[in-house]
Amino acid sequence: MSDSAFWRELGQQLRVDSIRSSDAAASGHPTSSMSAADLIAVLMANHLHYDFDKPDDPRNDHLIFSKGHASPLYYSFLKAAGAITDDELLTFRKLGSRLEGHPTPVLPWVDVATGSLGQGLPIGVGVALAGKRLDQLPYRVWVLCGDSEFAEGSIWEAFEHAAFNGLDNLTAIIDVNRLGQTRETMHGWDLRSYADRARAFGWHAIEIDGHDVDAIDRAYTEAAEAHDRPTVIVAKTKKGKGASEVEDKEGKHGKPLSDPKKAIEELGGERSLTVSVAKPTGNAEPHRIEAGDVSWPQWGPDDEVATRRAYGDALAALGSERTDVVALDGEVSNSTYSELFAKAHPDRYFEMFIAEQQLVAGAVGLQVRHYRPFASTFAAFFSRAYDFVRMAAISRAHMCLAGSHAGVAIGEDGPSQMALEDLAIFRAIHTSTVLYPSDPNQAAALVRAMADYPGIAYMRTSRGATPTIYGPDDAFEIGGSAVLRSSDEDQVTLIGAGVTLHEALKAADELSAQGVAARVIDLYSIKPVDEETVRQAAADTGAIITVEDHWPEGGLGDAVLAALAEVENVRVHKLAVTGMPGSGKPTELLHEFGIDADAIVAAAQDLVRTPAGAK
Amino acid sequence: MSDSAFWRELGQQLRVDSIRSSDAAASGHPTSSMSAADLIAVLMANHLHYDFDKPDDPRNDHLIFSKGHASPLYYSFLKAAGAITDDELLTFRKLGSRLEGHPTPVLPWVDVATGSLGQGLPIGVGVALAGKRLDQLPYRVWVLCGDSEFAEGSIWEAFEHAAFNGLDNLTAIIDVNRLGQTRETMHGWDLRSYADRARAFGWHAIEIDGHDVDAIDRAYTEAAEAHDRPTVIVAKTKKGKGASEVEDKEGKHGKPLSDPKKAIEELGGERSLTVSVAKPTGNAEPHRIEAGDVSWPQWGPDDEVATRRAYGDALAALGSERTDVVALDGEVSNSTYSELFAKAHPDRYFEMFIAEQQLVAGAVGLQVRHYRPFASTFAAFFSRAYDFVRMAAISRAHMCLAGSHAGVAIGEDGPSQMALEDLAIFRAIHTSTVLYPSDPNQAAALVRAMADYPGIAYMRTSRGATPTIYGPDDAFEIGGSAVLRSSDEDQVTLIGAGVTLHEALKAADELSAQGVAARVIDLYSIKPVDEETVRQAAADTGAIITVEDHWPEGGLGDAVLAALAEVENVRVHKLAVTGMPGSGKPTELLHEFGIDADAIVAAAQDLVRTPAGAK
Repeated sequence: MSDSAFWRELGQQLRVDSIRSSDAAASGHPTSSMSAADLIAVLMANHLHYDFDKPDDPRNDHLIFSKGHASPLYYSFLKAAGAITDDELLTFRKLGSRLEGHPTPVLPWVDVATGSLGQGLPIGVGVALAGKRLDQLPYRVWVLCGDSEFAEGSIWEAFEHAAFNGLDNLTAIIDVNRLGQTRETMHGWDLRSYADRARAFGWHAIEIDGHDVDAIDRAYTEAAEAHDRPTVIVAKTKKGKGASEVEDKEGKHGKPLSDPKKAIEELGGERSLTVSVAKPTGNAEPHRIEAGDVSWPQWGPDDEVATRRAYGDALAALGSERTDVVALDGEVSNSTYSELFAKAHPDRYFEMFIAEQQLVAGAVGLQVRHYRPFASTFAAFFSRAYDFVRMAAISRAHMCLAGSHAGVAIGEDGPSQMALEDLAIFRAIHTSTVLYPSDPNQAAALVRAMADYPGIAYMRTSRGATPTIYGPDDAFEIGGSAVLRSSDEDQVTLIGAGVTLHEALKAADELSAQGVAARVIDLYSIKPVDEETVRQAAADTGAIITVEDHWPEGGLGDAVLAALAEVENVRVHKLAVTGMPGSGKPTELLHEFGIDADAIVAAAQDLVRTPAGAK
Repeated sequence: MSDSAFWRELGQQLRVDSIRSSDAAASGHPTSSMSAADLIAVLMANHLHYDFDKPDDPRNDHLIFSKGHASPLYYSFLKAAGAITDDELLTFRKLGSRLEGHPTPVLPWVDVATGSLGQGLPIGVGVALAGKRLDQLPYRVWVLCGDSEFAEGSIWEAFEHAAFNGLDNLTAIIDVNRLGQTRETMHGWDLRSYADRARAFGWHAIEIDGHDVDAIDRAYTEAAEAHDRPTVIVAKTKKGKGASEVEDKEGKHGKPLSDPKKAIEELGGERSLTVSVAKPTGNAEPHRIEAGDVSWPQWGPDDEVATRRAYGDALAALGSERTDVVALDGEVSNSTYSELFAKAHPDRYFEMFIAEQQLVAGAVGLQVRHYRPFASTFAAFFSRAYDFVRMAAISRAHMCLAGSHAGVAIGEDGPSQMALEDLAIFRAIHTSTVLYPSDPNQAAALVRAMADYPGIAYMRTSRGATPTIYGPDDAFEIGGSAVLRSSDEDQVTLIGAGVTLHEALKAADELSAQGVAARVIDLYSIKPVDEETVRQAAADTGAIITVEDHWPEGGLGDAVLAALAEVENVRVHKLAVTGMPGSGKPTELLHEFGIDADAIVAAAQDLVRTPAGAK
């Protein structure tokens, strides 16, 4: 059998197996798989370099299904490659199966979870950046995209960054099957509309018939030979190709075929072809960066320093200590202070400009290659990339995010720049860690701690300078807290973090002068939260004030309440920002929104005065 | 003075006033204002149609500063138009001033808050859609963009949609001043790179010198004459133009000038020119859509119906009742059931394809023109547009969002499609309402209620069919709840909503058989929450189980805890999804993640058995 004939047969097998697996699951997206079957057949048979026995081989190519709903095709590809059995193929979408509705890294060959469209390509940019700038290995990154997902702006962030960085190791393949979930896409089969956009963004673009295996083969060869720029292959295909029940028909998205038997017959029946996918060659090892001198930053009791500054100093030091640490920023590195890392380690700094989705996707891509990314921007602007963070959790990604300029304490810039929801949204990420340091030595210690902590770690840093209250050798654990004022006579507990911790300390002094003993807890680890210390405070004082520069929902106060859910005999009063702020000086705004020392004192007096049981 | 000479003088005044206001504030972005001063001078003097005394005149043009940090320029423009005094100009960024760090609708002439980049243009697309398809009025939408924000993917979503909809009433003006916050943009002064991209996306593009007032004037005229497509004016400018201290210099972003006096001198000193901005002409009234027949949907006790389906039926009926109601969807209208509205009212349905940022921005733009938008997609995918929802709250927007396919109860599709954080992230939006109906009649009633409710209302709908437990005439208030099982002997309270409410009902029956009396509350209004009913249950039973198809953080359980923060003598046990789900059948997953009736029964027995005070 000629190569072309084999590729065509293989494509038919991938279609048949996509139909069979979806039929066994009684759900799934066979038609979206069938359109791209020839593209994947030729790729695996003649272009992909991958050792399925060693998914961690650094020389492996990366294949990302940005159109994650084509999972039947992906799993059929794994079967054809000999990575999974036919029996496992038919467990698709069943409880406990590794073959989930959309691919996740539960399978060792899957780099990242997809299924939220427009994410695979920007993550692929991150992997390609790792290959080009860090690993300096010749692996290629192949990303299969759907045409519908080109409506997502994140795709164009990826196009911009791939071209700007000259990622000729990246190939995007667009499966232009014309049909979305409910209707034709904006561009139908107008291949030129995609190619023109891509070329305007600086890519090499090739338009082909996505069912012509020889044209596909030539396009991959051309893509691999392209220099200085990424390549996009714009492939005209038919959704449901080869099965008369569904081919190029509307209303056939995301459901199994009603007559799979007939379709399989039309496709020439079941096959059991296997492909020995080419293994990567050469002895290449990832490029090693040498560790440099480390001088860990420290601050004395007289220093007033913003935690964002401490973040930058610590990150730069960490970069000297650990050569796997890399940093990315959304063009605000002089605000987040990631610029200190950029200056110390320019080869490991990635400027992602004002493209927060690509910022987070880049971090996810870099951690695929086992780098430890720290991505930073204003805390408010991580909300722009929240779906990417959500999906990163499903990808079981390990990465660190740092958001500066939190809360009304930023002052004059106004509400668009004030993160008042970041604690809530990061707490609601599976496996997340949420840190909010209150002093520079603590911030620095937590930067080091988060680098090794599994999952997605988020640090909220403050814009304004705050006093240094800890020593450089004080230890801070993720999941811990610090009790700063404590006595046997405590009548009330004040819990804050970051800027409000300092207000709580002032309030405790004032309360003390008024004859009220107040415990003060620095709850720098919002998630996981130090339940033991919080519960002890509840048992000891029975009255707790939480104070946070955040909306009342989902932040520090709610973390405390959750720790006390099953505890009786404690009253908690939450102080948080309840009105929409405008501009003003930081101290003015802390006062106006009732989260400064005055407000804490008033609330504590009120809580202490009110007899237990009165509310 | 010739027109051109006046425009140049006006431009200098706008620069001087940008410097003066930033100097008075001791912060702000004068240099980003100075680059665009000539663009705004010519626009206001010769092209804009706006009645500053009647900001609600439907015939007014709309001017949106997508680069919101150029607020000094915007406020200087207001002063030159006679809308604000010079005294007010100098209150910039001060506590209580309407002139916030970035523009917000606290000022009557501001349509929407900006300051998170890349949002003004997609919102402008929404306003232009209203003008073209709904109002059918000849007003124009002018959007001033920064060059840095072209890195945001949302800009390209806007480009795609504006061209697809032939929005020739929309003009984007790019202030290509080359310099971002920390460095040069990816494209510097390569105007062609912007124009090529725009043309590839189907726009008319004009490249000009942004300081040549005659060229600017010609470009605006050409933009207004363009047919069938939007126009982008790519203007080469200098950041800080006209002041030697800052002109075209790096490191001068976002700070006042150090020598404002010298700069003002170089710019020819202070001026007090005023411009009579042309008022809109004609007697045009917005096109009126006629109300049709209304038949409100209802379901009987034997119907098993998904709340997403009830949402669609109710929305279609509401659209007949109220002609201001419009709907948008992210190309999943047959999943969210907004397709029922689309079929009933095709003239008021907007297909936003798979572009969730443009979906929400479109809704924000439509409500600027006083339409009442309902935007829908999978609940998980609103996370893609979270920054737009956050900013919409600052815009004081009134809009309704509906997210379908929530939680593990969706089953086979897997975690990428399961919203498990939506309640948390929407609760953390200022002025938000969060609804989670449990039955079709209730869902329909809440669709009507949310249409009139101020602020941002979010409804979570379920994929699977659930029993009908309410009658079509039952009333449901936002902020209410429904007590479905209650007796004087209740030992424990079960609180759920949506799919878990039905599990709670089953659990109550089982507990009853085991001799435990359980109250059951349908907490369909997660925010605002019915504190009175929850507190009464706490007082009556002292033990509460919350159960939700959501992560433990920030959802229904935390809403209950917040309502009980100051209440003693109650123990709350939260049931929620704590592990990362895979695929499976809905019932299998509810069971595996401990949020089905079995889990509720076990938790209730445990809580009732444990003596109060033991934990």
